[in-house]
Amino acid sequence: MTVDQILQNSSTSLPILQGTFGLEHESLRIDRQSNHLSQRSHPDRLGSRNFHPYIQTDYSEPQIELITPISQSTKEARRFLRAITDVAGRSIAKEDYLWPLSMPPQVSEDEIVIAHLEDAFEREYREHLAKVYGKRLQTISGIHYNFGLGTDLLNQLFQQSNYQDLVAFKNDLYLKLAQNFIKYRWFLTYLYGASPIAEKGFFDHDWDSPVRSIRNSSLGYVNHESVKISYSSLKQYVADIEACVADGRLIAEKEFYSPVRLRGSKRSRDFLERGITYLEFRCFDIDPFDQQGIAQETLDTVHLLVLALLWLDGPEAVDKELAAAEKLNEHIAKANPLEPLPNQAPIEDLLQAMRAVIEHFSLPPYYSQLVDQLETQLADPRLTIGGRLAKEIKGASLEEFGRKQGQTFSNLAWQAPYALKGFETMELSTQLIMFDVIQKGIQLEILDESDQFLKLTLGDHTEYVKNGNMTSKDSYIVPLAMENKTVTKKILRQAGFPVPEGAEFHCLEEALDDFARFSHTKGIVIKPKSTNFGLGISIFKDNVSQDDYTKAVKLAFAEDDSILVEDYVAGTEYRFFVLEGETLAVLLRQPANIIGDGHSTIKKLVDKKNSNPLRGTGHRSPLEKIELGEIERLMLEQQGYTLDSIPDKDSRINLRENSNISTGGDSIDMTEQMHPSYLELAAQMAEAMDAWVCGVDLIIPDYREPYSKEAANATCIELNFNPLMYMHTYCAQGPGQIVSTRVIEKLFPEL
Amino acid sequence: MTVDQILQNSSTSLPILQGTFGLEHESLRIDRQSNHLSQRSHPDRLGSRNFHPYIQTDYSEPQIELITPISQSTKEARRFLRAITDVAGRSIAKEDYLWPLSMPPQVSEDEIVIAHLEDAFEREYREHLAKVYGKRLQTISGIHYNFGLGTDLLNQLFQQSNYQDLVAFKNDLYLKLAQNFIKYRWFLTYLYGASPIAEKGFFDHDWDSPVRSIRNSSLGYVNHESVKISYSSLKQYVADIEACVADGRLIAEKEFYSPVRLRGSKRSRDFLERGITYLEFRCFDIDPFDQQGIAQETLDTVHLLVLALLWLDGPEAVDKELAAAEKLNEHIAKANPLEPLPNQAPIEDLLQAMRAVIEHFSLPPYYSQLVDQLETQLADPRLTIGGRLAKEIKGASLEEFGRKQGQTFSNLAWQAPYALKGFETMELSTQLIMFDVIQKGIQLEILDESDQFLKLTLGDHTEYVKNGNMTSKDSYIVPLAMENKTVTKKILRQAGFPVPEGAEFHCLEEALDDFARFSHTKGIVIKPKSTNFGLGISIFKDNVSQDDYTKAVKLAFAEDDSILVEDYVAGTEYRFFVLEGETLAVLLRQPANIIGDGHSTIKKLVDKKNSNPLRGTGHRSPLEKIELGEIERLMLEQQGYTLDSIPDKDSRINLRENSNISTGGDSIDMTEQMHPSYLELAAQMAEAMDAWVCGVDLIIPDYREPYSKEAANATCIELNFNPLMYMHTYCAQGPGQIVSTRVIEKLFPEL
Repeated sequence: MTVDQILQNSSTSLPILQGTFGLEHESLRIDRQSNHLSQRSHPDRLGSRNFHPYIQTDYSEPQIELITPISQSTKEARRFLRAITDVAGRSIAKEDYLWPLSMPPQVSEDEIVIAHLEDAFEREYREHLAKVYGKRLQTISGIHYNFGLGTDLLNQLFQQSNYQDLVAFKNDLYLKLAQNFIKYRWFLTYLYGASPIAEKGFFDHDWDSPVRSIRNSSLGYVNHESVKISYSSLKQYVADIEACVADGRLIAEKEFYSPVRLRGSKRSRDFLERGITYLEFRCFDIDPFDQQGIAQETLDTVHLLVLALLWLDGPEAVDKELAAAEKLNEHIAKANPLEPLPNQAPIEDLLQAMRAVIEHFSLPPYYSQLVDQLETQLADPRLTIGGRLAKEIKGASLEEFGRKQGQTFSNLAWQAPYALKGFETMELSTQLIMFDVIQKGIQLEILDESDQFLKLTLGDHTEYVKNGNMTSKDSYIVPLAMENKTVTKKILRQAGFPVPEGAEFHCLEEALDDFARFSHTKGIVIKPKSTNFGLGISIFKDNVSQDDYTKAVKLAFAEDDSILVEDYVAGTEYRFFVLEGETLAVLLRQPANIIGDGHSTIKKLVDKKNSNPLRGTGHRSPLEKIELGEIERLMLEQQGYTLDSIPDKDSRINLRENSNISTGGDSIDMTEQMHPSYLELAAQMAEAMDAWVCGVDLIIPDYREPYSKEAANATCIELNFNPLMYMHTYCAQGPGQIVSTRVIEKLFPEL
Repeated sequence: MTVDQILQNSSTSLPILQGTFGLEHESLRIDRQSNHLSQRSHPDRLGSRNFHPYIQTDYSEPQIELITPISQSTKEARRFLRAITDVAGRSIAKEDYLWPLSMPPQVSEDEIVIAHLEDAFEREYREHLAKVYGKRLQTISGIHYNFGLGTDLLNQLFQQSNYQDLVAFKNDLYLKLAQNFIKYRWFLTYLYGASPIAEKGFFDHDWDSPVRSIRNSSLGYVNHESVKISYSSLKQYVADIEACVADGRLIAEKEFYSPVRLRGSKRSRDFLERGITYLEFRCFDIDPFDQQGIAQETLDTVHLLVLALLWLDGPEAVDKELAAAEKLNEHIAKANPLEPLPNQAPIEDLLQAMRAVIEHFSLPPYYSQLVDQLETQLADPRLTIGGRLAKEIKGASLEEFGRKQGQTFSNLAWQAPYALKGFETMELSTQLIMFDVIQKGIQLEILDESDQFLKLTLGDHTEYVKNGNMTSKDSYIVPLAMENKTVTKKILRQAGFPVPEGAEFHCLEEALDDFARFSHTKGIVIKPKSTNFGLGISIFKDNVSQDDYTKAVKLAFAEDDSILVEDYVAGTEYRFFVLEGETLAVLLRQPANIIGDGHSTIKKLVDKKNSNPLRGTGHRSPLEKIELGEIERLMLEQQGYTLDSIPDKDSRINLRENSNISTGGDSIDMTEQMHPSYLELAAQMAEAMDAWVCGVDLIIPDYREPYSKEAANATCIELNFNPLMYMHTYCAQGPGQIVSTRVIEKLFPEL
């Protein structure tokens, strides 16, 4: 039985690209001022390292390790890495940034503080490494790339093989892959090697000229030469590792450094029974030109390469061939980054295999382009990462480049702090929640991206969240009641809260017959029962005539089968965000407007306002840019202005009637100014509805006067069961209130 | 200060028709066989009389009293009475029916069993009445009509009056109304008197000729002549009543019989401080020509009359005028029903006042028509209820008429047992719930009729229900998860349940690229993510070609932004109704079909099937009539039939591809036949979703074989968070399962 030629003989419709992908990215926290290892502890806001699935510390306290969950594509894995990087970037102290290179800046042994982990074994293990390899070596960072074949792909390959046992088949397949990976590792060293120098004092004696990859050479992480593990068979591999651990050559199996590690069980022996489930490729230096440390093209090139390694036969004399390959790798790793590949490197085998895979399985043109790109890099070493990086070495140091690049990446994280990078197409409130979840180390699974449906897991506690705050905490009937304005009003009124008096009508005649009921009322609002962007709403701030009433009723019925006629309530509308019985934030929304400075035109003032980084387009930012469309121009015209008018200093000009944020309106955080009695009132209303989360819209004539039931100086005009969160946090004016974090804290009180 | 002329001086835009209305309808349960008082106890299924707000017993055990909640219009009150009558009609033993006349059939004292009430005072009170008036008199039944003026109307009247105190104003207004009501009571006796005779043996000596109203005469309920209560002022009224109770002329205030009772407090004295809030008009005989005992026109005529009584000045010499009015009433009550009104009856005052109210407030033409109708009844006594009833007297008895009429009404209740009369425009499942709620004595408020939104209250326990089973018992995230097919499948799969394998795609290219994944699968289903009446769904029961796949994917994308491609699962689809961890019902839905009898045409077989009373149109009945439209004709044509074909005996011919009940499909109750392991499986799936109520759609190849996880012989293709209930109860085949009642029992476990 053999797994050679299995791809060649497989159906061309095999789902060959199916796989699982996971990334780990280590990097050092560096102090912005000193440019040395940060001496600050791992940030508290990143929760507990006891269970954090995404952000851990590796060897030393400042060495952060970012870990993606298992993903179904390279894109998904890298996207998650972007998000985790974003969270890490905004969670570490602003005085720190993440070092973008595998090799650290200048560092002394004393500066390196072993990670403050609770687990005793983990601390001892690190002490042991310090003794055996020295602490400095442990500051070298890299990327690990985890790869497994997709279930369907594996099953279809298994079916076409003559194996009887799936475990045996998987073990043979992955072992061959691991063998070939080591055999051709030099290729990755050539392309992606990016640790050309060590800073002064890192090694005992300094360095003359740059190399491709210190980290992938014998100068990097390597075990003692007495540690010899054979890949000739899985049994032999297991036996060798166990022998090393038994006689102390290794303190634990995981001390065995290899460019590829077999994965799926903690103990190697378990592979024999349960099977290898994926491989961990550990040889990637950090790509300093990419914020995630590894480019999308790299991930896909490696994926294609792995498929080519599967296409190629495995080595025949395994130990011998792998030893030779290691020599070749050492040669390339230690070569100058501008040196071409040595002739003995069997590059054509690889390229041919890659092309063959592309052809056999009719892969999209993208993969051919990747191979084309490879060929240019093979032809010209300056195009490799190592080649590009060589140019940045100044006075035998990369510190200046590292600092510049690291701080640029750090600034990226703060550029749109309301967004979670990689997931900017999702709703802003959901992005906030995802940020919090990743930060606190709750496991995140996006069950449905377009539906904003998340699964959050902490230990054996699972919560589902949709649209940021639709959760298990509200009972189903609550949003249904809030969705219905008539029902909401009835419940609030029965509970003794102020709501506008009014009536609901289902036919024109009924509404017209009841005119007498409203003719006495000082001001009424006539609106469709289901509001639809303000269409069909008429407001009469004074007594209404029968004629106007009739027209308005007809207008409302044009929009809906049912209409509401309600008392008009004078005052200003505020949005109260209530969570679990407490008002967390109060917002005032103002129509799109500008304030004159006495010399700029309206056009200029709008441009200036629009340059606020919180303003964007298409609801992908907390505020929208003011558009100068027909409605805005008409509104200006009605006030006697054009775009070229120069408003008086401090005079405020509205460009819209409606105060929606989505049409350029301003959000003003009023949480601190609002009289606390209204915060209490809103919370009580939410409680009367039995709502866990609730947006309460109150009309209040004077926010400084305390609420009084007798004076009825606050009226509730609407409740919202899925209130927006981001608009309370990122405001046009005011400090802004954090609400999404509170949602997560309430969902997971055990945190 | 006076309340006379207050209407005359009021604004013509006053909301004059605003009011509150409540009805009480007493009637006797009669045994169908013996035509005597039923000796069966008050039905258990009507819950506890300790708190039942709608269905009580009055004096005797078989004397049912139906009580509506306070309603905002006469229509609403009568509609509720229809519903309560319907519930009562289907809750009493099938051997009983409700007597449609105020006077009972032949009855002896021994037959009359005092109501088995728990309250000791209520039992003693009834014993006392038996001693004072005799039990027989207590079998006389009638209608009480409760009326209050609307809040806005009252407030506006108060504002235009020169009263300072609202309570004083209300007391004066209602007292005047009560005075005038007694003054003109004879008018109602003439129009609506309907107790012309007593059956043999009811009185000590028998009767010669019929009268208008025994019940409204001195032969009916009247207190001992020593009980004299003056209406001259509220203080006097209170003093008189208290004196009677104090010296034992009355056992309690409520023993005072009067055609109008002041209401709002239990003790009369409280009116002085708190005010009268409404009046109870008690003089209405049961209208035997109407199932509810009082016609809509009667309610509105009385409403108009009451407004006219408010328009008219109150009596000056109250005691004297009322005594004279009582004499006039006695005369009319004891007159032959075919006798016209005596000349001394001041009918013109009343008619003028009614016309004046109509004119002053521009009431709709309906009210003028009511007055026109009145005038014809005044001109011709045969048109009054009494006049019409006189014709039905056979041999000095109305027993035959009463029996016929009572049984006709009783049959009406059973005619469409799935519907709640009066509320047939609401959803069937909501009608079932409302039936249960009224039956069990839970207070029902319809918060939004078109939205099927109910408020249910039992003591201080409130539950809201929308669409029959959307309640507080499900958490919000559960229906959101079920609404999303991808999320549902992920959660079920992660919990280890069988769901079809598949993928979701958001763009055409993505879906086409992934063809390889499905080309091996034996059969796939391609569908839009949000199913929309089956549009855009393609089913391939065998391997699919790339061409067909492409076409189907495009078809699905035409319906939705996202599509699902899933394994096709062979077998039959069943709907499992799960509530709180238990499967209550299993349904098989079959496409519209007929089964040949060997001699009828398809047309005829369809007509026959459609004659099933469970089949209707427009989703107002549990099954829909099979339409013979284009789709059905085409389907027949494809099978080589026309409407005139005569199918072989026992051969089944489908008229539709789809099995929806809404297109004439059959519902088959399979609860008992289905292997219990599937009931358990469905319940477990609902539990995995954390769903309280859930419709689980399972594909099962053989319902007799037990479920086995290994054999994977059941697959879940969909979950429903608001599963229909009525289709499990009223089936085309099988016994049907009661589910709505279980929902109510779970919502109110204290019942």
